[in-house]
Amino acid sequence: MNREDQLIAQMREIIEAQPHYRKLANSIGDDAALWQPSRSNRSVITTDALIEGVHFRTETMSLEDVGWRAMASNLSDLAAMGSRPVLATVALGVPQDGTGADVLEMYRGMLGVASAHRCTIAGGDITRAPGWMISIAAVGEVRASHAKGRGGARGGDVVAVTGPLGASRAGLHLADNVSMLSETLRDEALRAHRRPEPRIREGQFLGASEHVHAMMDISDGLSTDLARLAARSGCAAVVESVPVAASAAAMARARGEDPWDYALSGGEDYELLLALDARAFRHVSSRFHKRFGRELLAVGRLREGSGLFQRKVEREEAIAPTGWDHLRE
Amino acid sequence: MNREDQLIAQMREIIEAQPHYRKLANSIGDDAALWQPSRSNRSVITTDALIEGVHFRTETMSLEDVGWRAMASNLSDLAAMGSRPVLATVALGVPQDGTGADVLEMYRGMLGVASAHRCTIAGGDITRAPGWMISIAAVGEVRASHAKGRGGARGGDVVAVTGPLGASRAGLHLADNVSMLSETLRDEALRAHRRPEPRIREGQFLGASEHVHAMMDISDGLSTDLARLAARSGCAAVVESVPVAASAAAMARARGEDPWDYALSGGEDYELLLALDARAFRHVSSRFHKRFGRELLAVGRLREGSGLFQRKVEREEAIAPTGWDHLRE
Repeated sequence: MNREDQLIAQMREIIEAQPHYRKLANSIGDDAALWQPSRSNRSVITTDALIEGVHFRTETMSLEDVGWRAMASNLSDLAAMGSRPVLATVALGVPQDGTGADVLEMYRGMLGVASAHRCTIAGGDITRAPGWMISIAAVGEVRASHAKGRGGARGGDVVAVTGPLGASRAGLHLADNVSMLSETLRDEALRAHRRPEPRIREGQFLGASEHVHAMMDISDGLSTDLARLAARSGCAAVVESVPVAASAAAMARARGEDPWDYALSGGEDYELLLALDARAFRHVSSRFHKRFGRELLAVGRLREGSGLFQRKVEREEAIAPTGWDHLRE
Repeated sequence: MNREDQLIAQMREIIEAQPHYRKLANSIGDDAALWQPSRSNRSVITTDALIEGVHFRTETMSLEDVGWRAMASNLSDLAAMGSRPVLATVALGVPQDGTGADVLEMYRGMLGVASAHRCTIAGGDITRAPGWMISIAAVGEVRASHAKGRGGARGGDVVAVTGPLGASRAGLHLADNVSMLSETLRDEALRAHRRPEPRIREGQFLGASEHVHAMMDISDGLSTDLARLAARSGCAAVVESVPVAASAAAMARARGEDPWDYALSGGEDYELLLALDARAFRHVSSRFHKRFGRELLAVGRLREGSGLFQRKVEREEAIAPTGWDHLRE
C-alpha cells in the first residue's frame, strides 16, 4: 500500500465506526457513496470550504477545532433549510508537513459535530495542497413544504434570530485580551469560535411552522446576511434591536469598541435568521422557548421597499452591510 | 452589493441559464440546493478537488480547462458507479490576483462538460485562497442493481478498459516535445489532458449489465487502480496486455521511455476499468462496440490470491503500483 492508501485505510476504520454509517448502501472505498433517499422528502445539498490563512491559523486553532468548524458551517446551512442531515463528503488538502495523525485529528473534529446530528461522513478526497484546505459537501432531507429558503419573507414580517450574536468575534480576540473576561465569558467566546453548534433541531422546528416565511443562517454577520434575505424577498429590513452575546459585550467594552458591531458584522455565529408572520411571533417564540429553553430574539421588521435600515429613537438611518466579504481586497 | 455578492449575481445568471436547471426545486441563493430524488433510484455522491501547483499550473493550462477537468473527474466517478449525473456543487478558492472574469472562465469550463452530461451546477461557495482551489461534489442517480462498486469482482473475471491509456500523460509532456508528434496525435494528447471526457454513457451501459461485476474509473494509473479493485474484491490481478494510446506510444518513443509506463502509471485517463464474467466478455464487448463504435479492451484476468502481476511470455512478474500517490513526499 502506498502512503495515501495506508492513511485511507485508517480513515476508513474511524468512518465505518460512525453510528449511522449503515444507512449508506455501499461501504467506503468505491468511487462514490450510495444512499436511498426517503420517498416523501426532498434532498438538500450545500458546500462550504475553510482555507488555512484565510479562515483559520493553526497557531491559534487546533486541527480538531478546524474540522469541527468546517462541518458545523455546512450543517448550519442544512439547518437553515429546515432539513435533517444525512451525509457529508470531505475533500481535504494536506500541506507538505501535515501528517496522517493531523488528518485523523481533523476527522475527529468533523465526526464530533457530525455524529451529534446523525450526519454520516461518507468518504471523500485527499490531496497535497499549499496549506490546510477543507471542503465539505453535506446532504440533508426535508419535506418540500418545510424548506423555507431566503426569498419567502413579506413586508410586515418580524425578523428574529435563534440566539445572541457576536460571541464568535469575541473568541477571535480572546488570545490578546484573555485577562479582560471572566472565566464564564471566556468559555462562551471560545466555544462559539471553536466549536459552534449548528441549529439543526431549531431549523427543523422552525421550518415546520407555516408562520415562518424565510430562513437562513448567519455566517457573514447580521447586517450582510439580513440585507441578503431582504433583497431576495424584495423587501426592506429595519433593525430595531441587536441581541449581543454577553462575551461580545464584555469584549467590546474591554477594547473600547461598539458591541453592536460585534453582532452586526462579526459573522460565524451560525444562529438562524428568520422572517415570520408578526401576528404569530409571540406564539412561535413561546413554543420555541418550551422546546429549546430559550427565546426567539426579535431583531426588527421587514417592510415594503429595499435596503437595510436601523431604527434610532425617532428616525431610520441606513446601515452599510459590514459583514464578511470573502473577496474583499 | 459587496464584491462577493456582485460576482455571485453574475455567476447566478450563467448558472440559471443551464438547460436542466429547472430540475432543482429552489433557485440559487438559498443556503443549500434542493431537489427531488426519483423514487426507484439510489443517490450517489462523490467529491474531488484540484489544487493549483499540485494538479495544475496556470502557466500551462487555461482556467477554462481547469474547470473542465475538475468537473470531468467528478463526473467520471459518477460514471464508475453506473449512475446518471444530477447536480454538482462547487467550492472555489480564488487567489488574491484572481478576477471575477477568471472565476467566470473557470465556470465556463465546468459548465461545458457538465451540460453535455445533463449535470446541473447547483451553486456553491467562493472564498479567497493562497492559490486556485476547486472542489466539486457531484450527485447522481442509479438503480440499486446497476451500481457496481469496486468489490464485486471474482477470480476468473476478465479485466477490461473502455479505451486506450496514457494520452493524458503524453499531453503533460507536450509543451516540451511539441515537434515530435503529428498534429493528430498532438490533438489526442491535448484533448485527453485538458478536456477529458467522462465515460457517463459507457458507465450506465456497463452498470446495467449483469455480467459486469466491478467497475471504477482510472484516475491514478492502471497499476494503482487495478491493484485497488483487486484488493477490494479479494483477488489477484494479472496484466496481460496494456492498451497504449497512439499519442502516448509516440511520446514515449520520442523521449526514450517505456510506452507501457504511460498506461500503467500515467493516471488521469478517466477511462473505466471493469471486471466481467469471462464467458460474457465477447458478447458484452460486441454490444459495447455496436453502441459506442469502439471495443472494450481486455487488459488481463483476476484470479484467486492477492497482488498485481504482469504476464511475460512464460511467467508472471510482480508489478509495483506506480500510479499517482497524492501524499507521496
